[in-house]
Amino acid sequence: MSKNEIPYKIYLEESEMPKSWYNLRADMKNKPAPLLHPGTHQPLKLEELTPIFCEELAKQELDDTTPYIEIPEEIRNFYKMYRPSPLVRAYCLEKQLGTPAKIYYKFEGNNTSGSHKLNSAIAQAYFAKKQGLKGVTTETGAGQWGTALSMACAYFGLDCQVYMVKVSYEQKPFRREVMRTYGAKVTPSPSDTTNVGRAILKQFPGTTGSLGCAISEAVEAATSQEGYRYVLGSVLSQVLLHQSVIGLETMTALDKYGIKPDMIIGCAGGGSNLGGLIAPFMGRKLRGEADYQIIAVEPASCPSFTRGVYAYDFCDTGHVCPLAKMYTLGSEFIPSANHAGGLRYHGMSTVLSQLYDDKLIEARSVEQTSVFQAAEQFARIEGILPAPESSHAIRVAIDEALKCKETGEEKTIVFGLTGTGYFDLVAYQKYNDGEMNDYIPTDADLKKGIDQIPRFPGNLE
Amino acid sequence: MSKNEIPYKIYLEESEMPKSWYNLRADMKNKPAPLLHPGTHQPLKLEELTPIFCEELAKQELDDTTPYIEIPEEIRNFYKMYRPSPLVRAYCLEKQLGTPAKIYYKFEGNNTSGSHKLNSAIAQAYFAKKQGLKGVTTETGAGQWGTALSMACAYFGLDCQVYMVKVSYEQKPFRREVMRTYGAKVTPSPSDTTNVGRAILKQFPGTTGSLGCAISEAVEAATSQEGYRYVLGSVLSQVLLHQSVIGLETMTALDKYGIKPDMIIGCAGGGSNLGGLIAPFMGRKLRGEADYQIIAVEPASCPSFTRGVYAYDFCDTGHVCPLAKMYTLGSEFIPSANHAGGLRYHGMSTVLSQLYDDKLIEARSVEQTSVFQAAEQFARIEGILPAPESSHAIRVAIDEALKCKETGEEKTIVFGLTGTGYFDLVAYQKYNDGEMNDYIPTDADLKKGIDQIPRFPGNLE
Repeated sequence: MSKNEIPYKIYLEESEMPKSWYNLRADMKNKPAPLLHPGTHQPLKLEELTPIFCEELAKQELDDTTPYIEIPEEIRNFYKMYRPSPLVRAYCLEKQLGTPAKIYYKFEGNNTSGSHKLNSAIAQAYFAKKQGLKGVTTETGAGQWGTALSMACAYFGLDCQVYMVKVSYEQKPFRREVMRTYGAKVTPSPSDTTNVGRAILKQFPGTTGSLGCAISEAVEAATSQEGYRYVLGSVLSQVLLHQSVIGLETMTALDKYGIKPDMIIGCAGGGSNLGGLIAPFMGRKLRGEADYQIIAVEPASCPSFTRGVYAYDFCDTGHVCPLAKMYTLGSEFIPSANHAGGLRYHGMSTVLSQLYDDKLIEARSVEQTSVFQAAEQFARIEGILPAPESSHAIRVAIDEALKCKETGEEKTIVFGLTGTGYFDLVAYQKYNDGEMNDYIPTDADLKKGIDQIPRFPGNLE
Repeated sequence: MSKNEIPYKIYLEESEMPKSWYNLRADMKNKPAPLLHPGTHQPLKLEELTPIFCEELAKQELDDTTPYIEIPEEIRNFYKMYRPSPLVRAYCLEKQLGTPAKIYYKFEGNNTSGSHKLNSAIAQAYFAKKQGLKGVTTETGAGQWGTALSMACAYFGLDCQVYMVKVSYEQKPFRREVMRTYGAKVTPSPSDTTNVGRAILKQFPGTTGSLGCAISEAVEAATSQEGYRYVLGSVLSQVLLHQSVIGLETMTALDKYGIKPDMIIGCAGGGSNLGGLIAPFMGRKLRGEADYQIIAVEPASCPSFTRGVYAYDFCDTGHVCPLAKMYTLGSEFIPSANHAGGLRYHGMSTVLSQLYDDKLIEARSVEQTSVFQAAEQFARIEGILPAPESSHAIRVAIDEALKCKETGEEKTIVFGLTGTGYFDLVAYQKYNDGEMNDYIPTDADLKKGIDQIPRFPGNLE
């Protein structure tokens, strides 16, 4: 098919949508390190995970050998309401940049949660429902995950309890209202509904909360109520598994038009989007069928790949969750409050961490104001107001396309546009008013967090 | 094709997208009444319109004989960035309602303006650019139109000046920031930048503004700056012409699957969405090729069709615009401040008004709390958080589907889902908190507005 026939947006037919998720771990020679029990430092067994996670999800978490896992029909039907997502050819951006590069983006923002998070939320809600549970608990920071989970639970008639970091609860009342409209119970964290919340409130009466504290409250709420489990929107391997629909659809769309990407770019916080987008491409790369340059983009203010260490660390500041081996800045690391995006997590998915350590993916860190410059440029020419997180990938895609302009290379660039910025307008306002600035932690800042990573034989010892 | 093969979402191919707009007026036997000069009461001529409107748009405004008007390629390319919009089969809603009816909705919310307004904004910006203008001015209330116009102007590199009703400017800072991100200059109205604004500020120092006042300021700004024209997002026949892409895509999608709708439902404020959605269907109806029940849904708080009069009236409270013959509540009518949706306009498109007077469409008025009940139900089962405006159509679609459940009729219902409610969460919060109530104007309330409609020979005399 000639290049001229490539439409602005490639939509797959329903019949072309993936029927299975792809489990990248099955093709990895160096498997991601297993989760460890925080007390014994031994790999966690299924029966240790099932009191916290739904059984089927715990199985998926531990399964690093099955390459394809069927997507249940109920989930596929829900996917059909907002998927396939379009693979968009950025013709207008290319023209404006004057680049010979071909730029494509997979746009995951066309659903009410505003992001790719719904892909895993609906799967997690389904397995909870199938297990006969009454409900699930979770935490949310920026609110995309909480919104996605609320939508998924409303669909399956599950109770949904969201612990929302207090500062977000107060500063993002609209996110809160979307969740309430979907029937979720949203509690500002720390709260007096849990032991851990009460203890924190006693110790720090004026605290506006943190994601780590909200996780601890959500886990306690799940384990102390009959018929509840805890669910999480990123970092875990099960989440990357569900998010592989992004990559599978992208690959099918590209294959259909005979397009071979040279470069795949995604933003990386906990890794759910990037891990999902690259999964089948990395599979081909690992099997020696193709090669791609894969770039993870993270904020300079929270540089877990580019300035973190690869070690076992706590997933939460409350230290109630398992230890995961990942590129981390330490679970006590908190990026500057000035930082606008949702890419604030101290660690990175174990799958991506292993791939990065094996030099199969590379990483870039970018500064906030240049990210918003790219966001504004993209919004004006491509029409979509991007989320700050997604705009990290836009920044690097534009930079790479401009390099092609210099060299004359006709590279094909694919990036993940994870979501829309409709609920991030406080950050846009700062940018519009010229009040946004960059924050790059000093080596001393980072040392404080890294020093608190647990030491034990084989881990930083 | 069997009914089982109808996908959740019907997306047309780019090659199936309309290449011309459809001008319904060409097929109307009873043409909509012409716009009149407010002083002379004579039909307006092209040369009287072109100082205010772009020349090509003024021509479109007056053209009631050309059935198809080609969509310029530049506009079609822009359409390809966010169109075709999906025609969605509401399988999940049908199942939940237990209705034998088939429900489809044309979803126009998947773009950053959050609504169908972009369809006309890009056309108006294009013709302004083509005429060599520097920029355009407009007013915005809820902000959807202002956002759409900002996006369109950013794309073509036109200056965009938006007069935003002061109360919205202050209460909807996020809408304002989206417009600023697209480079628009947003001024709270009334302002001291125009004579009319200064006069109003002097007379009513504490006023929070009104749409009528913002229109007057925008018109003055357009006519007092070299190289500027005024543009409008609804009511006008040119706007309905551009919005015919909604109906044309819908008809192509339905025809492709051999689906014949029995009933077409749309919300109606100024009429841009309903007029666009029904245009080609009404064409078939007028030409005797098919018949459909067509229902305009309006809020009980602003019932221009169901309780207004058909007469020449001012389009704006400032009385600077032409007189239009329409169903109207009087240009001084202001619906209750409690009213959440954007369907607050006192009048209705001249095209729709004529069709309604000819009994070719019918109208229903619905109350606010029942609209939000429908919105919540729809959001939870179909995933999309709808705009309050769109939810008026959802309310009636659900009511009709439930009637089918009683009678056993397998009617095919198509409704327009004009946009998303992401910027309407103050209203959702009111609903979630149980603080929303209904307001239905008394006959005395309406009489006040209707009494102020101008009287002259042939008009209410």
